[in-house]
Amino acid sequence: MRTTAVCVLVICLVTVCAGQSNPASSAARSWRQQHERPILDELLAFLAIPNESRDRAGIQRNAEFIVKMMEKRNIAHRVLSIPGGSPIVFGSLPSPGATRTIVFYAHYDGTSLDPKEWATPPYEPVFRNGRVEDGAGVMTRPPAGSPIDPEWRVYARSAADDKGPIVAMFAALDAMRAAGVAPKSNIQFVFDGEEEAGSPSLEKTLVANRALFAPNSVWLMCDGPVYQTREPLIVFGTRGVMTLDLTVYGPRSELHSGHYGNWAPNPALGLSRLLASMKDDDGKVLIPGFYDEVEPLSGVEKRAIAAAPVLDKQLLQDFWLGSAEGGTATLNELITRPSLNIRGLSSARTGAQASNVIPATATATIDIRLVKRMTIARTQQVVRDHLRQQGYFVVDTEPAAEIRRAHPRVVKLEFTRGAEAERTSMELPVSQEVIRTIESVRGPAVKLPTMGGQLPLGAIIRPFNVPLVVVPMVNHDNNQHGPDENLRIQNLWDGIELMAALLTM
Amino acid sequence: MRTTAVCVLVICLVTVCAGQSNPASSAARSWRQQHERPILDELLAFLAIPNESRDRAGIQRNAEFIVKMMEKRNIAHRVLSIPGGSPIVFGSLPSPGATRTIVFYAHYDGTSLDPKEWATPPYEPVFRNGRVEDGAGVMTRPPAGSPIDPEWRVYARSAADDKGPIVAMFAALDAMRAAGVAPKSNIQFVFDGEEEAGSPSLEKTLVANRALFAPNSVWLMCDGPVYQTREPLIVFGTRGVMTLDLTVYGPRSELHSGHYGNWAPNPALGLSRLLASMKDDDGKVLIPGFYDEVEPLSGVEKRAIAAAPVLDKQLLQDFWLGSAEGGTATLNELITRPSLNIRGLSSARTGAQASNVIPATATATIDIRLVKRMTIARTQQVVRDHLRQQGYFVVDTEPAAEIRRAHPRVVKLEFTRGAEAERTSMELPVSQEVIRTIESVRGPAVKLPTMGGQLPLGAIIRPFNVPLVVVPMVNHDNNQHGPDENLRIQNLWDGIELMAALLTM
Repeated sequence: MRTTAVCVLVICLVTVCAGQSNPASSAARSWRQQHERPILDELLAFLAIPNESRDRAGIQRNAEFIVKMMEKRNIAHRVLSIPGGSPIVFGSLPSPGATRTIVFYAHYDGTSLDPKEWATPPYEPVFRNGRVEDGAGVMTRPPAGSPIDPEWRVYARSAADDKGPIVAMFAALDAMRAAGVAPKSNIQFVFDGEEEAGSPSLEKTLVANRALFAPNSVWLMCDGPVYQTREPLIVFGTRGVMTLDLTVYGPRSELHSGHYGNWAPNPALGLSRLLASMKDDDGKVLIPGFYDEVEPLSGVEKRAIAAAPVLDKQLLQDFWLGSAEGGTATLNELITRPSLNIRGLSSARTGAQASNVIPATATATIDIRLVKRMTIARTQQVVRDHLRQQGYFVVDTEPAAEIRRAHPRVVKLEFTRGAEAERTSMELPVSQEVIRTIESVRGPAVKLPTMGGQLPLGAIIRPFNVPLVVVPMVNHDNNQHGPDENLRIQNLWDGIELMAALLTM
Repeated sequence: MRTTAVCVLVICLVTVCAGQSNPASSAARSWRQQHERPILDELLAFLAIPNESRDRAGIQRNAEFIVKMMEKRNIAHRVLSIPGGSPIVFGSLPSPGATRTIVFYAHYDGTSLDPKEWATPPYEPVFRNGRVEDGAGVMTRPPAGSPIDPEWRVYARSAADDKGPIVAMFAALDAMRAAGVAPKSNIQFVFDGEEEAGSPSLEKTLVANRALFAPNSVWLMCDGPVYQTREPLIVFGTRGVMTLDLTVYGPRSELHSGHYGNWAPNPALGLSRLLASMKDDDGKVLIPGFYDEVEPLSGVEKRAIAAAPVLDKQLLQDFWLGSAEGGTATLNELITRPSLNIRGLSSARTGAQASNVIPATATATIDIRLVKRMTIARTQQVVRDHLRQQGYFVVDTEPAAEIRRAHPRVVKLEFTRGAEAERTSMELPVSQEVIRTIESVRGPAVKLPTMGGQLPLGAIIRPFNVPLVVVPMVNHDNNQHGPDENLRIQNLWDGIELMAALLTM
């Protein structure tokens, strides 16, 4: 996303207005200014270890590196795992007399990649004096003792997602100890090694080690980017997601469209009419009952959304769009609602590959984004009911000839996987405390009840029923999950101050 | 298509009822019974010459073979061509004093093929004692003088489509000469070498040689199969066809469906809604004005359709369909109406290849089958108008960023090619004469005003404005255009008798 004149103005206002009033973050800044070189050295060493989720050996080496970082800081640690799962590195810093625990969650694995798509090798971190897309070149790091330009960036896989935050937490801890500031709560760390694979064993691993976690806890998930204006962002939930494949059947095999066109039903038309019956031009889902379970936003949540800067016009410009769905509602409002999205369509062939046929089948893959209180089970049921109401006989495996002959319309419906939405109330005292703490570092934050995408909140909230807040620190233009992932140095510095404030909350 | 009990019954009735009253065809039968071996020898030699439309050298050898067949029979001949076109072999047999000319059209090229898909090599003709799908094996041909089982088939590319009819014409001519029966009309032959490529130079070649063709002519197109019941079939026209590609645009590139789902318009949904707006569940095209130009069928044409055996139930069974479009109308009625058919759909990826994106584009390829009086130009216009009425800004090339930003809905509409429908009136005296002649050979024929598909009628009718009737002779289960194409021997024998009758019409 391109930074715009509007955004730059907002950033300037934020920078000018934000008086730093948090003593821990002030202490962290002074300490960081004296220790930029060792902080960056630790980050670069961490980034040099390959960490694709499926690379078991690489993941193991990363876990060992984190253990060494903890040992160096006298953090009690354990490596937790279940058979078949990746190691979860757990660290604990009890505070004598504390009755509350703050658990910092981050992940150390990265998405899979193709090194050929990268400007420089993904596991050989380099500095650039800006964005590679803007032509920024590779820079030699400044000599020890000289400050680094905070607009420089570190390019490497997981610089932003999500090793940067782990390094920021440990640097903040070092800074507080140097300044003699002690946490008021017990501090715990949970570092996941398979978040990019959907955290398949996180919940089971946590449950198997339930005794390590105190009931009076708040979890802080340090992942994702700050707001596109570079303002701090605090997010209290995620949408859930479930996917489905729909296949509509036509003739047994492709038929000549001259000989049988107008007679043999066309499955691509059937699928199109089915999809058109599911959502209107304004983005409203038409499946009866789809919205019935939705928990409405509270007044506080609505006001938080209304207070967030609206970037929709710039996004339309960036994405070459003439309008958005949802009428006058903004992106921030719309992602608090459930959505139905067609991921793809396929039927026979198009363009130069097309031939004069009536296709035999037509398939759509769909994702439904869920919001709080919507269950996967009931949503599956309303989808199934809707297909039946449209006159379809619904099967869940390839239908035999007899079934296809017996029913004018046959659709195969396959649900593939899912996770329900989670949302912590912004009105809880601890939610308000997190907001106050973060706003004491760099001034007003953007506060959103939910993000549009998915993080493994459920794996934590389901077993422990604890409040969980997402506290991002990295730049929004970090090329997360793509080639040339990067972390802007100023975001790392800000992140250390943020973590210092949260560690002493 | 499988032969059914119903069909077999109809065949038996036809065989029993059909008294042969045409003297030329009776003479042809007697002569054929004495000359089966040389007729088949000529067919097999012809089939051994590879004839893919694009194989220029093969096509040339086929044309030379036809020239030799004509020379052997003292038919005046010329090879007609225009630069870049394949040779059209023209033959002429004037009849002294005749005022009418009958032009027999057939083609000697075949569709492209993959020899690996064939049970035996496509250009090494063999006999089988039935259908290869039913396990029929390769047979040694009977010794000279012994009759061949008429249920045997010749397997080779173009055995049925369309070299068999050419051999039948020449055999019929040989038979008539042997019996001393002379044609009453002038006879001409036009053998096309690129019909399977859409006859791109037929019209120009005919126009360039206009002087060869007399105004008072009737053209007989000897192509396609008889009715599925094995009854004779006479067809008076073809539907036209035009194709279009529709591409609906979403975001510039694929977007994360969590972050932007519900906000960024989904082009796959837009396309689905657009397609759904074009045709209802009963197969009626909803584009305003689509049917305005259609020339209604005459009473004679309607009665002819009503008299044709209805095979719809069996076809539903064969194609695993629970119902057909068009309510109570039959296949034979429906193909006299224009149709709109989706050839294929594509947008991002589906199934296991799908990812959590809002696609950037969605494409459908469509064919519209035209009926008589519908023009391509006006049909293009009603499609374009309909897209606009649906709120789309319509472009015909890839739209620039500015266009996509300026319009909420953008669709690219590309028309790729077309041919208009042609239909000769069944009520013309010459049409009635063709019907009477054919029915004098094997009894009642199925008479259809149009076929659903496409033949190059326009290339002949446009320049000459002559009546044209399609007179098929080959079996319906000939695997036309596919692997294991074949010609049933009885259809060849019947075809010789049919051609004898038509040559003396």
